[in-house]
Amino acid sequence: MAPGHVGSQQRNLRCAGTVGTMLAFGRSIVFPWGLVTMKSETYPALRWQGSSLDLLDQRLLPREIRYLTLHSAEQVAQAIADMAVRGAPAIGIAAAYGAALAALGLRMNATVDAQAWAEAMQPALAALAASRPTAVNLFWALEQVKREVKLGGADLPARLQQLALDIHQADINANRTLGKLGAQLLHRGSRVYTHCNAGALATGGYGTALGVIRAAHELGKLGQVYAGETRPWLQGSRLTAWELQQHNIPVSIAAEGAAGSLMRSGLIDWVIVGADRVARNGDVANKVGTYNLAVLARHHKLRFMVALPSSTIDLAAASGDAIPLEHRSPEELTRFAGVAIAPEGVAAVNPVFDITPADLVDVLVTEKGVVERPDAAAIEDLLAG
Amino acid sequence: MAPGHVGSQQRNLRCAGTVGTMLAFGRSIVFPWGLVTMKSETYPALRWQGSSLDLLDQRLLPREIRYLTLHSAEQVAQAIADMAVRGAPAIGIAAAYGAALAALGLRMNATVDAQAWAEAMQPALAALAASRPTAVNLFWALEQVKREVKLGGADLPARLQQLALDIHQADINANRTLGKLGAQLLHRGSRVYTHCNAGALATGGYGTALGVIRAAHELGKLGQVYAGETRPWLQGSRLTAWELQQHNIPVSIAAEGAAGSLMRSGLIDWVIVGADRVARNGDVANKVGTYNLAVLARHHKLRFMVALPSSTIDLAAASGDAIPLEHRSPEELTRFAGVAIAPEGVAAVNPVFDITPADLVDVLVTEKGVVERPDAAAIEDLLAG
Repeated sequence: MAPGHVGSQQRNLRCAGTVGTMLAFGRSIVFPWGLVTMKSETYPALRWQGSSLDLLDQRLLPREIRYLTLHSAEQVAQAIADMAVRGAPAIGIAAAYGAALAALGLRMNATVDAQAWAEAMQPALAALAASRPTAVNLFWALEQVKREVKLGGADLPARLQQLALDIHQADINANRTLGKLGAQLLHRGSRVYTHCNAGALATGGYGTALGVIRAAHELGKLGQVYAGETRPWLQGSRLTAWELQQHNIPVSIAAEGAAGSLMRSGLIDWVIVGADRVARNGDVANKVGTYNLAVLARHHKLRFMVALPSSTIDLAAASGDAIPLEHRSPEELTRFAGVAIAPEGVAAVNPVFDITPADLVDVLVTEKGVVERPDAAAIEDLLAG
Repeated sequence: MAPGHVGSQQRNLRCAGTVGTMLAFGRSIVFPWGLVTMKSETYPALRWQGSSLDLLDQRLLPREIRYLTLHSAEQVAQAIADMAVRGAPAIGIAAAYGAALAALGLRMNATVDAQAWAEAMQPALAALAASRPTAVNLFWALEQVKREVKLGGADLPARLQQLALDIHQADINANRTLGKLGAQLLHRGSRVYTHCNAGALATGGYGTALGVIRAAHELGKLGQVYAGETRPWLQGSRLTAWELQQHNIPVSIAAEGAAGSLMRSGLIDWVIVGADRVARNGDVANKVGTYNLAVLARHHKLRFMVALPSSTIDLAAASGDAIPLEHRSPEELTRFAGVAIAPEGVAAVNPVFDITPADLVDVLVTEKGVVERPDAAAIEDLLAG
């Protein structure tokens, strides 16, 4: 299969070689997403290349724009674990592409036996599933992969590739829809505080929380964005500020410690964040620090919005208590850029997600609609509708 | 005057040359604080050397222990502005030593005229007063200096030197007293979250919030300390963790974003912080992020303690609204260790203090006593008593 050619079942594809040329990849690239999205994301988080996956290495942003070229599911799993790609929807899409790489790499073209495929695919799917625990989109995408694998067939690689492309495109579409729905809730001149990065980089494109912000900006409703820097990975200052700057959206970065004082000074109208997993009752798992903001928003009588594609809702989790919260290495807190920022041997507690109980959420915004004051009944209605 | 000799009016002095020897300063040093304190602070923030001031450069901790030797008030003012020394009480003490250096450096030994002294001292006092705006101890110390200057006299340099030594010793004494008073409020096994650094490094010695924590530890009452890392200067992970480690007090550092989730998980009993200025009504100015913690503590029905020497209370400020809050350079948020951590040219809002309204403070602890649910009447009583 030629590089950049995504197989016979491709749908919704348009050629747009400019980014590839700009980055001197030196070959023609077929992009799986629409031209509109191409225009909005100069540097997409993920680019499918037909027999490899290009991942924008988000650890290096904003200093350096470098794409990793990944050829196997194991490489994708490592990139997810190491946070070269992050953000729940983007992780799910990367995992789907990783599964496609696994199937393509197995060279079992003549094999139709579902059992043989399932056994051959198992290590790759296990590696992907073990990469990070909290974002449900990963497991949601892998569930769809497993359903395809169970069907077997010589065309499984092409079908898994198409599945990944579909998941990717559907995420972009969902973000554009939910962005518009969320933006409708903002008044003219709204000042928004956001946390971590729930933008194009965290998704297939356009973004969830930043999708709402971008849509509000497009409607001329946005006053100002404050991006909390978000320790320890600084996704707010490194990624969110970088994205918003590219769209000429007014953004100031702030230490997380300043959130309360900005609110108390009357500078914030909305807190808008994404989600890594939403439980059936509306509890939200998101980047650690989100819960602080929800408590602060309620204290100041500000509105708290969580923006997510419906793929982030996990009906199997009855509440936030059922969501596994990742703890990462203490080194993320004790070292920075090779420099020790804490004494040798000190203990550190590094939970990287937290749970915001549903009763602190004013509105959940998804592509299927908006839920005010979410609870289990409202979420069931949303998904059924 | 010989190096290390602090003048004819010295009181309360004991020789303790071990630290000087250990640091290979190569000369005998007379320390102005008691031997007890010497034992507790291996590396004090400030060391008066008779004709110069040694300041532990806190920007380099914990990687490197380096003392700056300062010979003028202007150098002290610069060190305060640049945060080589920080913490409200330590800034006040440094300013007092800075004024002594100015008087010593003027070589006006024969001059008795108060007006001549006042004019000669004016640039130094202005430089010190302009170094940082929020910590009231700076202005409190300079007020005492100005009262001495107004008296003139050939012995003004010696008197200013003694004043600085007295302010320094009184701060240590106050911290030991308030530490004991605060520790009495903790139950056995208390788990404490603290913010920034309100330890020996922020004071003359022993610390305010960390004084309470140390006293609780000495009483066997302390379960665990969580030190919020405190962006952007990371005083929590760099300084508080380093101090507590030296005293074998169990400490874990945490991102500020994790505070709410630690509280929600039932891991915290008390939030204990210091203060840069307390208004007459009990409003507290302290390191940005303190207010977030106060709101979170109230939401979780935890106790919120502010520990401070009474010199940090500013009766001239009717409320927090009257306290000037310093904003520092956006570069503190956009660069770290020479590395860009935000896109070029991005705006940043960097208020480095915030106001916690008195109604979120459960208890103020000072060397003069403890005030539960502080208000103007209770604070007036405290200072009168």
